[in-house]
Amino acid sequence: MTHRVAAPPQLAISTVIFALRQDAAGNTTLMLPLVQRIREPHLGDWALPGGPLNATEDLSDAAARNLRETTGLEPRYLEQLYAFGDPARSSNEERVVSIVYWALVESSEADQAIQSRNVQWFAADCIPNLAFDHNLIVEYALWRLRTKLSYSRVAHGFLGEEFTLSQLREVYEIVLQKPLDKANFRRTIEASKSIVPTGQRVSGGSHRPPQLYTYDKTLNLTDQGPLTSKSAIRHNSETSTK
Amino acid sequence: MTHRVAAPPQLAISTVIFALRQDAAGNTTLMLPLVQRIREPHLGDWALPGGPLNATEDLSDAAARNLRETTGLEPRYLEQLYAFGDPARSSNEERVVSIVYWALVESSEADQAIQSRNVQWFAADCIPNLAFDHNLIVEYALWRLRTKLSYSRVAHGFLGEEFTLSQLREVYEIVLQKPLDKANFRRTIEASKSIVPTGQRVSGGSHRPPQLYTYDKTLNLTDQGPLTSKSAIRHNSETSTK
Repeated sequence: MTHRVAAPPQLAISTVIFALRQDAAGNTTLMLPLVQRIREPHLGDWALPGGPLNATEDLSDAAARNLRETTGLEPRYLEQLYAFGDPARSSNEERVVSIVYWALVESSEADQAIQSRNVQWFAADCIPNLAFDHNLIVEYALWRLRTKLSYSRVAHGFLGEEFTLSQLREVYEIVLQKPLDKANFRRTIEASKSIVPTGQRVSGGSHRPPQLYTYDKTLNLTDQGPLTSKSAIRHNSETSTK
Repeated sequence: MTHRVAAPPQLAISTVIFALRQDAAGNTTLMLPLVQRIREPHLGDWALPGGPLNATEDLSDAAARNLRETTGLEPRYLEQLYAFGDPARSSNEERVVSIVYWALVESSEADQAIQSRNVQWFAADCIPNLAFDHNLIVEYALWRLRTKLSYSRVAHGFLGEEFTLSQLREVYEIVLQKPLDKANFRRTIEASKSIVPTGQRVSGGSHRPPQLYTYDKTLNLTDQGPLTSKSAIRHNSETSTK
């Protein structure tokens, strides 16, 4: 009987990136980019973008670098999601613990992302069988996004600096996959005090063009309490002050 | 000039454990146990209980084992808090990424925890300078606990199976460090539909003893969506069905 000494667990960083994009039928849909694996295990399967942590790199910096390298994206919203470490998720040869981030990008930015045979966008609710436990990770990220929409300003991650109430409601409707009552939505959002009118209106021909709003900048996009101003989400803080 | 090849980051699991206990002055206070380090770096400093991840162990199992070994505690509530990986948190020799869990234990259980010269309980808002970045970790855990109290049934982690509305309010008052209006509190809790009357009253001499409540068991204590029934919080699921 031979005993192999188990190697210490390896660390990897992966990211679930969400954007609202047009699917093949032209409907705006919640989508995410996946990368086709070019090595074993799971050669040829789709997987979340990810890679190892460099020796001197913070976790969020590793997530941001990885995103840049695989997709060309630099999201406004980047936050730690969860660490996945079930021993059964790895091969027998090498145990990998993945610290997963999630990111939101605006549609216009997503349109400029790298597209290749190996990097493709899929509708979030219609993804193939992924490598490792990545289906569970996507499912959890979707749950977190939908939950967080109800009590935070996370929707801003999908929008430009200024937006109309209709555009904001559309984000909620697409992510939650259900129509929302216009008047109720306006009341709820106004009561939350998370957005402020810019005083401007959409330029255009209509008699009474809709008002433009912006998010209250005094509220942080990723509410992480004591971590907000610290290194744990340093990348996000830097990009959100652009 | 010599270059050392940087070793891959090591993984550690630490836990912030909260309980409501009497401080030296006899006031019920939010407290947590700390362990005095018996080796370098930070020899003699207080730190969170923690240790390495065993080769075949899930992350939450490692947290639970570690808690058992250092404090004798088996908390009802055990949930992943955050992964801390700033390179500056470690010594130059060895980089450590810590996946941190947080746990809540009932006062009666906390009273049976191991106490020794090397394991002591401190008031959560009055802890000494800790090893590594553990002060930041405690600060973040406190923030998470206080935030989560407002939208989840996390307070149950401090209470027995049955409790009165006064006992529940006391948990909120101690954790949030402010008095709460009795009638408002009752209205808010009843509107949340998270607790149900047991039909029993506290046994005792008073003319109209207070009603007993229990938490709605159909709601999970740690709401983790798709992860709830899966391995990520397996330990919690096992203990919460006792």
